[in-house]
Amino acid sequence: MPVGTQATVKGLTIDQVRATGAHMILGNTYHLALRPGHETVRKLGGLHGMTGWDGPILTDSGGFQIFSLDAINDISEEAATFRSHLDGAVIRLTPEHSIEIQESLGSDVAMVLDHVVALPAERDLVQDAMERSIRWAGRCLNAATREDQAKFAIVQGGLDVELRTQCARELASMDFQGYAVGGLSVGEAPSEMYRITAATCPELPEDKPRYLMGVGRPIDLLESVARGIDLFDCVMPTRNGRNGLAFTDGGSLKFKNAIHREDNRPIDETCPCLACKHSRGYLRHLFNAKEMLGPILLSIHNLTYYQTIMQGARAAIERGEFDAYLAEKKRGWGEVASA
Amino acid sequence: MPVGTQATVKGLTIDQVRATGAHMILGNTYHLALRPGHETVRKLGGLHGMTGWDGPILTDSGGFQIFSLDAINDISEEAATFRSHLDGAVIRLTPEHSIEIQESLGSDVAMVLDHVVALPAERDLVQDAMERSIRWAGRCLNAATREDQAKFAIVQGGLDVELRTQCARELASMDFQGYAVGGLSVGEAPSEMYRITAATCPELPEDKPRYLMGVGRPIDLLESVARGIDLFDCVMPTRNGRNGLAFTDGGSLKFKNAIHREDNRPIDETCPCLACKHSRGYLRHLFNAKEMLGPILLSIHNLTYYQTIMQGARAAIERGEFDAYLAEKKRGWGEVASA
Repeated sequence: MPVGTQATVKGLTIDQVRATGAHMILGNTYHLALRPGHETVRKLGGLHGMTGWDGPILTDSGGFQIFSLDAINDISEEAATFRSHLDGAVIRLTPEHSIEIQESLGSDVAMVLDHVVALPAERDLVQDAMERSIRWAGRCLNAATREDQAKFAIVQGGLDVELRTQCARELASMDFQGYAVGGLSVGEAPSEMYRITAATCPELPEDKPRYLMGVGRPIDLLESVARGIDLFDCVMPTRNGRNGLAFTDGGSLKFKNAIHREDNRPIDETCPCLACKHSRGYLRHLFNAKEMLGPILLSIHNLTYYQTIMQGARAAIERGEFDAYLAEKKRGWGEVASA
Repeated sequence: MPVGTQATVKGLTIDQVRATGAHMILGNTYHLALRPGHETVRKLGGLHGMTGWDGPILTDSGGFQIFSLDAINDISEEAATFRSHLDGAVIRLTPEHSIEIQESLGSDVAMVLDHVVALPAERDLVQDAMERSIRWAGRCLNAATREDQAKFAIVQGGLDVELRTQCARELASMDFQGYAVGGLSVGEAPSEMYRITAATCPELPEDKPRYLMGVGRPIDLLESVARGIDLFDCVMPTRNGRNGLAFTDGGSLKFKNAIHREDNRPIDETCPCLACKHSRGYLRHLFNAKEMLGPILLSIHNLTYYQTIMQGARAAIERGEFDAYLAEKKRGWGEVASA
């Protein structure tokens, strides 16, 4: 899912998002609740009405942003309290309020409010946050009033397999339409993330989507698919694109580098995206001249690339050749062995 | 002509430029000669190859930028000398070199190098610059080697009708494919610009295009069409769009204004552009949240609006109803009388 934090995938018109091959996009509850405010979003027709996106939209719960604002928050059993990064206003977010906001935003999938802890952390702290996340998940389910909005639970438990599997089993026994693995991609080694994902997925229902939140690099997506994940969101394709980096099957290209100056080749001649109708030399010029079109074109390319590798993964799974697909991609990316 | 100073109409992909209805775009010789350099542009397939634009492209000569850099330039009969705004390098531009650069850029229309003076100015200075512009126009014509590139001359002469008509007559006797009125829209009153345009156009060949450089507001375009102008370029639609201003038949809307916060109406329900598929409230949110998509969408809208009023002008001329068309537009814009 391309990330549309503030009700826009940065730099792209909604038809350009669609042209990348994306089926589903994400919005951030925390940011939208602060600006323009969820009541305003509702009056403007919800995220669908504002953005014009006619596919499904998932909203996060605000939990991860509370975690990102660690220094200025206080979490009790009742609520998370923190300060707005915009104006310093004190905000109190309960599981019930997170659902109320997401119902106003009008997303198709709402995430439960969870308690994320910074890693590494004491086991007691991780366990406490995990157990609170389960109780909060139940409160979210009880608070929901919209039948047309799916609810996804979030598995917590840090890097502890025992806590993760306990959390996954308890959430799996509750009536959610999908399950996320949260609290990862927060600085731990990829191998740790893969280990936790591999241990968690078997505990989740086979017939419901599994979503690894905030991940990641192309290799992280495929390694996680290998471990049972279906759904991802990440700002990497757009953020790295804005910073001049393009993903390809042969690794990444940096367009702030002068080597591309007179290169007439496209990023990838097999890629159908708009950026690949231009030369590397032109893209290099756009970044060198600080033109908006550089970030726009590389965001389009990277989102298209992410969709392409995921389409390739789906096709390889259907052919029963996913392992070979993963190995081939890793060779191209210069990754020598599975982490 | 939408302005693509650095080989990109700021914020728009080339298919978005095409979708505004534009037939022809402009690039700036001064900027492109400095970065990425005209030899690099040539190696990357010229402006057409870089941008992917398949319609005609016009390049200016660098004359206006020399004028904008007034404080740091020296103009002799042989050349204009000035410092690069990028790295301070001393650049010497002759009429011959301007044509050589434009031939490398591969534009379809090259402008002659002219000597623009800041207004108001002493008559002697204006006359001297005008006469030099005529001599330089001749040198440009002699220097040209590409048969596939049209050359347009530029009429100078400040706000002096006698000097303007003298310049226009002399240039009209030379073999150019088109004629521009230059040195206007530099701070003088619109009425002065209209007066000079009205006096100059009758001296130019009827069967060749007439181009008013660097103009302007929607009303300036139509008032100048009334006086005989065919072709315009201006950064206003994109620059004002980036700053949150949208042009409409009812005047302009400022999207940094909170009045639009919960407004579900589009900018203009009759406009076919992408921005008008969204609500004013969404556009307001994008500007408030400093999202790239705000500038992108308003640039698209404003370019579409400029093309729409020019299409309307062409149709009205063919019906013989241009005066009524102009009067109607002026009523909408809140302009009470012809300047």
